[in-house]
Amino acid sequence: MELSENRLQRRLDKLSEFTLPGRPWTRRAFTDLYASARDWLRQEMEAAGLETRIDAGGNLIGALAGAEPGLGVLAGGSHIDTVVDGGRYDGILGVVTALEAVQAIVESGEKPRHTLEVIDFLSEEPSDYGVSCIGSRAMSGNLPADLLEYTNPAGERLGDAIRRAGGTPGKLNGALRGDAELAGFLELHIEQGRVLESTETQIGVVTNIVGIRRYEIVVTGRADHSGTTPMNLRQDALVGASRIVERVNAQAKACQSSNKYLVATVGKISIRPDAANAVPGEARITVEVRSDDQQRLDSFLKPIIDWAQETVCQQDQLRIEVHPLSASQPTDCAGPIIDTLADSAAALGLSSMKMPSGAGHDAAHIARLCPTGMLFVPCLDGRSHCPEEDITMQDAINGARVFTRALLSLDCMSPQDAMQAK
Amino acid sequence: MELSENRLQRRLDKLSEFTLPGRPWTRRAFTDLYASARDWLRQEMEAAGLETRIDAGGNLIGALAGAEPGLGVLAGGSHIDTVVDGGRYDGILGVVTALEAVQAIVESGEKPRHTLEVIDFLSEEPSDYGVSCIGSRAMSGNLPADLLEYTNPAGERLGDAIRRAGGTPGKLNGALRGDAELAGFLELHIEQGRVLESTETQIGVVTNIVGIRRYEIVVTGRADHSGTTPMNLRQDALVGASRIVERVNAQAKACQSSNKYLVATVGKISIRPDAANAVPGEARITVEVRSDDQQRLDSFLKPIIDWAQETVCQQDQLRIEVHPLSASQPTDCAGPIIDTLADSAAALGLSSMKMPSGAGHDAAHIARLCPTGMLFVPCLDGRSHCPEEDITMQDAINGARVFTRALLSLDCMSPQDAMQAK
Repeated sequence: MELSENRLQRRLDKLSEFTLPGRPWTRRAFTDLYASARDWLRQEMEAAGLETRIDAGGNLIGALAGAEPGLGVLAGGSHIDTVVDGGRYDGILGVVTALEAVQAIVESGEKPRHTLEVIDFLSEEPSDYGVSCIGSRAMSGNLPADLLEYTNPAGERLGDAIRRAGGTPGKLNGALRGDAELAGFLELHIEQGRVLESTETQIGVVTNIVGIRRYEIVVTGRADHSGTTPMNLRQDALVGASRIVERVNAQAKACQSSNKYLVATVGKISIRPDAANAVPGEARITVEVRSDDQQRLDSFLKPIIDWAQETVCQQDQLRIEVHPLSASQPTDCAGPIIDTLADSAAALGLSSMKMPSGAGHDAAHIARLCPTGMLFVPCLDGRSHCPEEDITMQDAINGARVFTRALLSLDCMSPQDAMQAK
Repeated sequence: MELSENRLQRRLDKLSEFTLPGRPWTRRAFTDLYASARDWLRQEMEAAGLETRIDAGGNLIGALAGAEPGLGVLAGGSHIDTVVDGGRYDGILGVVTALEAVQAIVESGEKPRHTLEVIDFLSEEPSDYGVSCIGSRAMSGNLPADLLEYTNPAGERLGDAIRRAGGTPGKLNGALRGDAELAGFLELHIEQGRVLESTETQIGVVTNIVGIRRYEIVVTGRADHSGTTPMNLRQDALVGASRIVERVNAQAKACQSSNKYLVATVGKISIRPDAANAVPGEARITVEVRSDDQQRLDSFLKPIIDWAQETVCQQDQLRIEVHPLSASQPTDCAGPIIDTLADSAAALGLSSMKMPSGAGHDAAHIARLCPTGMLFVPCLDGRSHCPEEDITMQDAINGARVFTRALLSLDCMSPQDAMQAK
């Protein structure tokens, strides 16, 4: 099976060019820029011989019919949206790799047994609607109706945004794919950490994906004029929020001293009125907790809120509300797919290691539908979600070769075998 | 001299209606909304018999020629811009009152000795360019060329914004009014505090206006993926900024235990990338310090920065930069004008008290040019810079009557006398 390295590189270059000018690399889901990038991708899929559609969850899918439709669908893909000021490769490498693998199979003239799909999941990154992995949640039946009512700062409902992206929010009342419809799913991604680079390993085979809890905490005080309100009469919401930011950080650092994986981050903050001469009356922060241990995940926030209610709220006359935004469980990858990926790397003479994924991925949601696996390629200095994110083309090609070989191996297996072997 | 209470009320109602829909009361300087409000105000001035112009600093001025041009100009006014989610009366009450006073003089048929001017100063509130009191700074020669190069988040230079507002930035290389050109300036404003209300006093006569220092502090760490960066490898700029926010608050609280007035506020914060799943790589905060004591004003920030360099920067591998944004000195009001205002209140049977202004005002800049005074009217619960800001119409009318009587008294005085009496 011959992959085109030039084509892979050209597509990465072209897709990353869809960015906000002066803010590389910014391609937010639901923007016109994102729609243009998807339109280009759809044309590339069609030129490669795939039949394209957008499903009810707003996912762009390119399909190649298999010889034995009863076997179900083997799918691969990732996402093409970015955070603001994000990286060049996060997401798009997995989409471009899956397209390259399926196109190489088309060009080989051999018809696969399974129908193959290349999926560009809608809005994997945290969206302006407070939800991430929107497309993979929708496909796997994990986008309940109340999330569709979430709004962005401009007041648009998530349901309406999905409709703008070509989806059909009225049909999102359960999984979009039937029980046996998907036979397996593979996602290639940059590692976004430093483990592969520091151990000089070429391929990471993912064993499990962390669970993630996100909350919005709203601290409410009283907006006042900064010049005429004495310090002792202030109800400064930003001072309260700052104490919570520190507490989240300190508690997560304390957890790290044990062996279990847990990280916690305040990655977003906004205040009102947000003027140099106004005491902040409201502060909103997003707290995110990640762990591969369900119990730690569930119990992290409560002691911080209890402490804040007793100290911050009492001392500074502030009110605190906690709004859960999203929750995903820790997810195991499928044993047979883990083995297939490791065997594929070995057969190609590439070094590999088994590792957990600290980052959430669309694969964590698709694992509810079918046996799922992920592979990582190294990235420079572990940088991700920032303009400095980088990879070598050799690592990208190594990953694409392992991905393609594993896809062909899974096509030979019956999905029943794969599931029972686990 | 007969004031029209209905006209005063109608103009307050009409002017406050120029607000962003759904965000009362938001009328930011340099927006189209602000330009519309100014256009309406210019027409009101002209209908009242004033000759209007916009000076090089973008100030809208309505003038009534006096009988003795050699005496110079007696001016009154304030500003019509607001903070985001600000109040209904901050600024506009002073402009509408000055217009009502001069219109009543026109309607009385008596020609004043001095030329009278009603001034709407450009952008008194902290602007998106990091500078406040833009128009009164420009008029008094306190808008140095480097401030004209400041840009808003969209990248527009302040100089270009002033040109959009009708000003001539090329002419801002000194005070716009000559030494003897202004004979006096009066500004009426809501108190923005609780002193008048709590002492049931009808008029505040301002003795001095606090000095204000504003700084932007930029904390730089490293943007990383929140899921793959262990807590001990993070350089989280928001955690560092949060510690500075708390320190500013704690040090100002400690100062308050003494008798001298000092307040310090972090009223603005922004971070990048500002995403739930990204460790913040940069945080920007605005620190504002106010005091009527020059030495306290100058010495407040340094110990905080020294502490931050030694602890925050060392522990979390962060960099801190401090950019001074603006500085105004504590300013005394002119003795003869203080006396004139107090006498006017007494003559009208209104209670008054002398008090400092914790808020900065255009008057603090105009005091560089001529004898200047301010009077305050009570506002509900001290609320200001927020939608709950409110006044009673009786308090507004009381203030307008004192303002008008004082203006007429000053018109009878020679400005030389007023200045020498001090």
